[in-house]
This record gives sequence, C-alpha cells and structure tokens, in this order.
Amino acid sequence: MQLTNYFDHPIIQAPMAGGATTAPLVAAVSNAGALGSLAAPLLSPVAIIEQAEKIRSLTTRPFAINLFVQAMPQPSADEIAHASQLLRPVWQSFGWDSLPLPAKWCEDFEAQLEALITARPAVASFTFGMLNHDQIARLHAANIFVIGTATNVAEARAWQQAGADAICAQGSEAGGHRGTFIGAQDHAIGILALVPLLVDAVTVPVIAAGGIMDGRGIAAALTLGAQAAQLGTAFLACDESGIHAAYKARLLQAASEPEKSITCLTRAFSGRYARGLVNRFIDTMTTVEHDVPAYPVQNALTGSIRTHAANSGDTEFMSLWAGQGVAAIRAMPAAQLIERLVAEVQRTPLRQ
Amino acid sequence: MQLTNYFDHPIIQAPMAGGATTAPLVAAVSNAGALGSLAAPLLSPVAIIEQAEKIRSLTTRPFAINLFVQAMPQPSADEIAHASQLLRPVWQSFGWDSLPLPAKWCEDFEAQLEALITARPAVASFTFGMLNHDQIARLHAANIFVIGTATNVAEARAWQQAGADAICAQGSEAGGHRGTFIGAQDHAIGILALVPLLVDAVTVPVIAAGGIMDGRGIAAALTLGAQAAQLGTAFLACDESGIHAAYKARLLQAASEPEKSITCLTRAFSGRYARGLVNRFIDTMTTVEHDVPAYPVQNALTGSIRTHAANSGDTEFMSLWAGQGVAAIRAMPAAQLIERLVAEVQRTPLRQ
Repeated sequence: MQLTNYFDHPIIQAPMAGGATTAPLVAAVSNAGALGSLAAPLLSPVAIIEQAEKIRSLTTRPFAINLFVQAMPQPSADEIAHASQLLRPVWQSFGWDSLPLPAKWCEDFEAQLEALITARPAVASFTFGMLNHDQIARLHAANIFVIGTATNVAEARAWQQAGADAICAQGSEAGGHRGTFIGAQDHAIGILALVPLLVDAVTVPVIAAGGIMDGRGIAAALTLGAQAAQLGTAFLACDESGIHAAYKARLLQAASEPEKSITCLTRAFSGRYARGLVNRFIDTMTTVEHDVPAYPVQNALTGSIRTHAANSGDTEFMSLWAGQGVAAIRAMPAAQLIERLVAEVQRTPLRQ
Repeated sequence: MQLTNYFDHPIIQAPMAGGATTAPLVAAVSNAGALGSLAAPLLSPVAIIEQAEKIRSLTTRPFAINLFVQAMPQPSADEIAHASQLLRPVWQSFGWDSLPLPAKWCEDFEAQLEALITARPAVASFTFGMLNHDQIARLHAANIFVIGTATNVAEARAWQQAGADAICAQGSEAGGHRGTFIGAQDHAIGILALVPLLVDAVTVPVIAAGGIMDGRGIAAALTLGAQAAQLGTAFLACDESGIHAAYKARLLQAASEPEKSITCLTRAFSGRYARGLVNRFIDTMTTVEHDVPAYPVQNALTGSIRTHAANSGDTEFMSLWAGQGVAAIRAMPAAQLIERLVAEVQRTPLRQ
C-alpha cells in the first residue's frame, strides 16, 4: 500500500499523548477524508484495544495508532530522591510534605505493541526510538503500514534501513515531545530545512510535522516534497479534543495575543525535551531541568503535580504542549477544520 | 516603491557579516536578477562607502546594505577580566599568556548609518535592534527602502509601527546571529510557523529567511505568504563568497555527510545567539556560554582567537556560521546558483 491510499486529503492528525486524541476526534478526522491518529503511549494494552474498537464503531476509514518505543527504566532510590528534591519548590508550594511516588514508570512497550497488532489499525507510527526488523515484519504481516519518526537525516536513514514504509519528519516547531533518538534532543531542525534533507536522504515517503496550522503550511510542506502534512496543535482546540478546558482556554488566549504566545523546549516535565507554552512550572525548573532524570522517570514523577494542577484548573503547573504556530489555532469541529484546510490549500498563491 | 520592484526573481542574498559578502558576490547576485546584500556591520564608515562604490562599478542594478542596530558598550575592567577568564581554556591551548584586548568593541552605529545614507543603496536592512521614526524618515528621504528583521510577532509589529517598508522574518533555521530584540534570543521560531504568523500580523511585505537552500524552499516560502526568500548559507560556497577556504571546505564536507552536519545556537563566540557548525570552540565553552558578556563585547574579545584560527586554517576555533539546511549547500558561481534556483521553483509540485 502507498501512504496516499490512507487518505483523500494529505493531512494527518498528529498523535498527542495525554488525552487529546479521543476516539471521536480520530474518527471525525478519518471520516472527513484525512488520517486520524490515536496516541497510545500512555494507554495500557487493554485500553489500546478498547480505544481502537471505539474508533471502529465511529468510522470504517483507516486510522493510525502511535506508540513511544522505550524500555522500562530502573531508577535507583538515590536517583528518585534526587529528582524529588529538584521538584521540591513545586510540591512545597502545594503544601505537600513529600512528592507522591508513581505506581509505575511507564507501560510495558512489548505488551503495547502486541495490543497494537491485535487492534490492527491501518497505520502505526512510532517515536522516541527504533523498531527492529522483526517487529516491523510482524506489523507488515498484520497489514499495518509503519511510520517512523525522524528529527534528522541519521534517524530517517535508520528507519528506512529497518523497513519503515514512511518517515515522519518532526520539525523543531512541533509541540510536545521531541522524537530524537540519535544525537541531542535540542538540536532541533526547522521543518523547512528538514523536509528537503530527508526527501533527498531516503526513498520512502516523508510526512512533514511541526508548526503547520493552516492550508499555507500544508501547501508549503507538499512544496518541500512531503507527501502529507501532520498537524497536532491545530486539532487541540477542536470540539472533539480531549484536553483540559483550562489548557484549551490558554491555547485560544495565545491566538488572541500572538505576542505573548511563547513556547519553549523543556525537559522539566518529563525528562525528554518537549515544546509547550511557558508557564510557572517551566520557569521554576529552568535552572535544574538539565539535571532531571530521563523520560519516563521524570514524567511519572511529575504525574501527581500535573494531576493536582488539572484538578484545580491551574494551567501554571500543567504541561501546555503546543507548537510554534499556536497563535493560529482555531476552535471548531474537526470535520469543519479539515474542510477549511483543504479549501485553504487550494487558495495558496502557487496554485493560481 | 514595492519590494518586488527591486528584483526579477524573489530571491535575496542574505547579508552575512565577516567577509562573505564581497562586492563581486553582491553584484553577481543583483546582475542575475536577484537582490544582493552587502553585510556592513563590521565595516568602518569609510569602508561602507568604498564597498558600495565597488559594487556600483560591477552592477547598475539595486542592491542592499545591512547594519546591526547597536549602542557602543562600556564594559567594566572586571567584566572584561571575567570574560577573559572564561576564554582561558581556549587561549591557554594556543600557548598564550593572556587574551589580547581589542582596539575597539564595535563600529559607531550612528556613523555607519550616515555612511549608509551617503552610499545610497536601493535597500537597507537592519537587525539586532530597531531604528526610530527619524532614522527611518532620513532613509526614506534618501529613497532607501527599509527592511527590519523580526524573529517574532512583537518585533514585526514594532518595525511596522516605526515605518519599515518590509519585514524580514528570520526563522530558527537561519545561520549566523539571531536578530531578536524583544524576548529571549533562543526562543527561535521555525520559518514555517513564523512566516504565516507575521503575514497575518502586519500589512507590509514579509521576506522569509532561514534554512532555504533550493527552489523547494523558495517556493515553500512564497506559499506561506512571503514576497521573497532570503538565502544566506546557500551563497557561502559560491565562487565569489569571501569566506576562509577552510570554512568553505567544512561547509562542503557537511554536504557529503549530512548526518554529521550538526549546527547549534551558541553565545560563545559573540555574546549573542548565533547558529553555526559545532566545533571544538563551542564544545569547550558549552558550560560557560550563558555567562559570557553580551554582543559586541564577547565578539571583540574572541577576535584574536578567530584571527589566530584563520591564520592557521584551524576550523575548530573559527565561527562556522551556517543554517540548518547546510547539507544542501552547492559550490558554483552565484549567477549559476540563481539560475538553478529559479528553474527549481518552476519545477516544484504545486506549480504543475
């Protein structure tokens, strides 16, 4: 199968872990002729299968499931104690005596991959690491199209070598976590430079992701040689998006005050560089963020902080993942957004 | 005058301070129907006028002159001593007993601006800061089209408010110094996100700069709503480029090994964030670069180091400014590059 067989419009709704990609969002995107993606990295194997069934009850069209490729960490008691100390200014400000420890560090990747294969989405995409030849062969045997995420040429070539069917080029503009697994996570390349480099470096199709908010961005991505554009932040304010209402309100505020919609890359929330709106948590952790444990340990350790912030609707301590185009975000149903995007692509100058 | 009156092809050769933009390069670009730019920030007033005359002897077409908008610094003896200490691992490795101090910190901006007005280029572009209304009025009275550099929405609006005729949107991909003067220099926005944000925020034309290396990038920039694309790194390997031969060789090596062509933003060379190929100087200074004095003090202090490196052809201690598209660099005469770029724009998918 070709990548372009999975959609009528070359638009992929990005997988965004943490609750944004509800079954109604994924299904609405796919029903509108684009490709919806379920972000499954934080879902248990059972939940992955349940969510896939829910999506299938809402659409007969192809959709994607995304996972983080990662090993189970084994942090020492000292490492955990140190990490908890670094977070002390935050949890002390909540009036807590100590930082509650998480029940587990992350889901078991092998079990998640089994569940994904059982769920049999048309497309599976992966980030944070590489699958091996055998894992890709199993996905192919289940008729699943495999997309690997790359943030530089070395990663794109590695994914192609392992047998991936397409490469998602993640530009520095992208919201949420950097997928980098070769080289430094903060050596992030802008999408306008990255897409042509990857198109020239591999023979499989390239998908452009990062900072794309409207038809101009999609048309630019296709002009650069991408076969599709992947949009994440653009879908966060859709009616079907599952993010916290206060987070959605902050994103829409960014749209009305573009001068103040500053995003940055931070390790503070999760131990892996990720892009989001600057808030008090990020500012508080600035001087120590280089020292926090790697993903998923820090992510699990900040879970109680983020839950507390969510319960009180306090966006200063939530992770407000957003890409650099956030000021162009629009609130509407997903189907309507796809329709607008397609119309905008038709109107871009070079088409005329 | 409209921006588009200054060129046949919507391509601007970026001003790159430090010797790259020789009169033959600027003239060759303008003669080929694009817009050449002389980088004058490090030139004395007399040299600015001389260079402009030299360009005029080679072309009758419009060209641009660029300046850094900056005040003369007044560092204390303590600040200089501290900065010299931070550089000790470098100058000690050269066998020096101390760091030679520069004769001056920078050229006087007011005098440079006078020289620019005397030189009367068709276009003048500015970065690092803002001109005031009166300065822009004087440029306009001399029939000079004024371009202000912006790295975010706030800067673009400020330039428009001050009377600039166009905005150069500098994306995070761009090689060399960040132009940021409102907000943090390292909150660099990728060009694919930045151009639409600025096009929507101002009414004057927007020029896209950063990571553009070929016709795909130029077409993408126009698709995003820019009226022209500004390319810097793409011209560094041209025959007419004045950069050190060893620096040029490193750039061309990046083209043959895209996996290894890593650029980063660093304050280490100049005290202002700038993007270049990673080398030993940057690595040596990593842990202290946040502490070096602001531009132009650090830039002047590292002058002797960079001169020493240039004299011995040692690229590990030169500033190897380059954008994130550097792996797509091509060596040829500038006129030939312009011809190729124009042909490539015609071949991009959305034109067909």
